[in-house]
Amino acid sequence: MMTAQYDSCIQACSNCAVACDTCAASCLREDDVKMMARCVQLDMDCADMCRMAAALMARQSDFAKQFCALCAQVCRACGEECGKHDADHCRKCAQACLACAQECERMAA
Amino acid sequence: MMTAQYDSCIQACSNCAVACDTCAASCLREDDVKMMARCVQLDMDCADMCRMAAALMARQSDFAKQFCALCAQVCRACGEECGKHDADHCRKCAQACLACAQECERMAA
Amino acid sequence: MMTAQYDSCIQACSNCAVACDTCAASCLREDDVKMMARCVQLDMDCADMCRMAAALMARQSDFAKQFCALCAQVCRACGEECGKHDADHCRKCAQACLACAQECERMAA
Amino acid sequence: MMTAQYDSCIQACSNCAVACDTCAASCLREDDVKMMARCVQLDMDCADMCRMAAALMARQSDFAKQFCALCAQVCRACGEECGKHDADHCRKCAQACLACAQECERMAA
Repeated sequence: MMTAQYDSCIQACSNCAVACDTCAASCLREDDVKMMARCVQLDMDCADMCRMAAALMARQSDFAKQFCALCAQVCRACGEECGKHDADHCRKCAQACLACAQECERMAA
Repeated sequence: MMTAQYDSCIQACSNCAVACDTCAASCLREDDVKMMARCVQLDMDCADMCRMAAALMARQSDFAKQFCALCAQVCRACGEECGKHDADHCRKCAQACLACAQECERMAA
Repeated sequence: MMTAQYDSCIQACSNCAVACDTCAASCLREDDVKMMARCVQLDMDCADMCRMAAALMARQSDFAKQFCALCAQVCRACGEECGKHDADHCRKCAQACLACAQECERMAA
Repeated sequence: MMTAQYDSCIQACSNCAVACDTCAASCLREDDVKMMARCVQLDMDCADMCRMAAALMARQSDFAKQFCALCAQVCRACGEECGKHDADHCRKCAQACLACAQECERMAA
């Protein structure tokens, strides 16, 4: 398979996108939504970035590496914000973001 | 986890999106690209549909079920086209499309 | 241009996606975010639907019409929710959603 | 409107995405698809980048500027490839890519 070099990063990106989407929707159902507003914003950015990173890697795009470098930054920012909150969906999202950031940094190197 | 009911369908959609993106890029590198043109077109549609279906399920959207019903149709069309070709990427994509169509049909029911 | 038949619907979808993204981000900056939570959720769905509808029409996808039919439903739901709120970004979004729903319904017919 | 500073770049991105999607689908219908294969690949990347750049700007994302910097590079690459071909859809796409690259470079500055 042509994309073998990308496989673990694609998987990390797919996982992170789902974790971010789940976290965004769950944050919007919390009692104190205002406290989670920045989390929702970053979740949206991070989910979109991760989905597109996975697509570019699967398509072996010329721009996959540069995109992964930026994706890693968004993952770090989102993971840091999620790490401030105790909700289960935030903790899971923070873990997925960290794992994805590491994979994307490896890809971008 | 709130999205447990969706988990296997989300995973099938993520897998199918990667298979379709891989297939599209690989078709464009084939000697006889013309023969693969419809495959590329359907791969693009199917990858986009599957990525969005996964996002809507993860966000527990009100429209997730209706979207999955349409996604299943696109998966069936893409899998049928891929099934006409012998290339490894097409066979893998056809399998991923069929699996995803079945999951999406189950979700939409 | 091959997509002339789609031009006004593509434009309405592009406008609606921007209005929904703007509305989502603005809702998250409101004092009473909780009151806007459903608006944010629908804005996310509607922005994603409209962007993808525009892409499918521009690519003359076999599935453009069916997708537009579903997109119109999401636009109507989002526009209805935005119409409940007085904020400028909600009113603008409600208008863009209504215009896009009408274009998508015309396309789907 | 909060996104006034981004308006012309958002519009350029939306236009470029449509031009790229139209070009990709049209390339796949050409007699000599093989000659257009790289054009299709870059069209897919550029359309996805432009759509996401528009979304990030409309959401006033922290990452909008960095994303626009990368989007400009993809637009330049796609515009250069399209500029090698005589087809009407390629010439229109090359123009849209150049205009979008300039707007994105201005945003990223």
